[in-house]
Amino acid sequence: MQFTTDNLNSLEKRYRANLVNSLSGAKSANLIGTQNVDGKPNLAMFSSAFHLGANPALMGLISRPNSVPRHTLENIHKTGYYTVNHVTEAFYEQAHLTSARTEKSEFELAGLTAHYEEGIQAPFVAESPLKIGLKWVRTVDIEENGTHLVIGEIVFVGLPEGCLESDGTVDIQRVGSLAVTGLDTYHSLKRIWIK
Amino acid sequence: MQFTTDNLNSLEKRYRANLVNSLSGAKSANLIGTQNVDGKPNLAMFSSAFHLGANPALMGLISRPNSVPRHTLENIHKTGYYTVNHVTEAFYEQAHLTSARTEKSEFELAGLTAHYEEGIQAPFVAESPLKIGLKWVRTVDIEENGTHLVIGEIVFVGLPEGCLESDGTVDIQRVGSLAVTGLDTYHSLKRIWIK
Repeated sequence: MQFTTDNLNSLEKRYRANLVNSLSGAKSANLIGTQNVDGKPNLAMFSSAFHLGANPALMGLISRPNSVPRHTLENIHKTGYYTVNHVTEAFYEQAHLTSARTEKSEFELAGLTAHYEEGIQAPFVAESPLKIGLKWVRTVDIEENGTHLVIGEIVFVGLPEGCLESDGTVDIQRVGSLAVTGLDTYHSLKRIWIK
Repeated sequence: MQFTTDNLNSLEKRYRANLVNSLSGAKSANLIGTQNVDGKPNLAMFSSAFHLGANPALMGLISRPNSVPRHTLENIHKTGYYTVNHVTEAFYEQAHLTSARTEKSEFELAGLTAHYEEGIQAPFVAESPLKIGLKWVRTVDIEENGTHLVIGEIVFVGLPEGCLESDGTVDIQRVGSLAVTGLDTYHSLKRIWIK
């Protein structure tokens, strides 16, 4: 079956959002940790963190214009730091709860634990096996739809023993990181490539 | 175990590339189809296509400065079109061959078949079950590392019957799309979320 520009434009808004969100396939499931200038922690589910370059070590993150995790961008700009925490099967349902609009702490709502590393003004998720600390570099406004590309430099990586191959590759399946497709469909990864 | 900025900067180049490429977790495995102004087709493996927005329907793609698929960006800029084709277990080893430097057609090298849709000046991969046609919108230069963010509007979607849920979500596991982690580790997806 096919969709063309005319079909796509005439689809009901929610249906279209589900369809188009699915088209990019596998996305990484991450909790983004930030804090405001008073140190109040914030946690939000994102499926838009991506690799941007190894040297310098950069990641990109797309922030929506009026999305639920709207404090995330403001906190990044004010403190200059944020964390990317891989979500695993052990706590993905808790992680998903952070998508709800709440005045409570998302850590409390989700039953997750804040963890701090020296020099990084943002909370990590203690339950996450792969934790990345980022220093904000720049935000690029995507004028076509009001989203923002947040560019950050990796300044901290924490991962479990035994998950790093001899060539530096992280065994993501062993870490247990999940993929997301569409808006809220979670998948575990099953390796099929034998190097 | 941990890495901080100092550790990261002192790592051997290839080791560092493998490590940092792994940190973003699950990425989608896609073949990008383009053609030059003479209509010569080009095909290149990318793991950097991502969802940018549903209205308008936009995708982003990160193109490296001097990467193997260096014709891709030039072709997109000259013709204004490109295709994103999900890679499945049935042909991922063929797809991976397009990463090699070659003067031959990557379609020929990989044993894959070009397929065309009216109005789109770029080849699709006939073997791919989920084909997306994009019209180039704009390229944003990422000055921090010389990469390029290519923004495109989705103008065509082709997918198999029976893979679309009633709310518009594509069942990516049924489509058979793969995830990539690091530089070249492929994974199938196993759904764990029951809505």
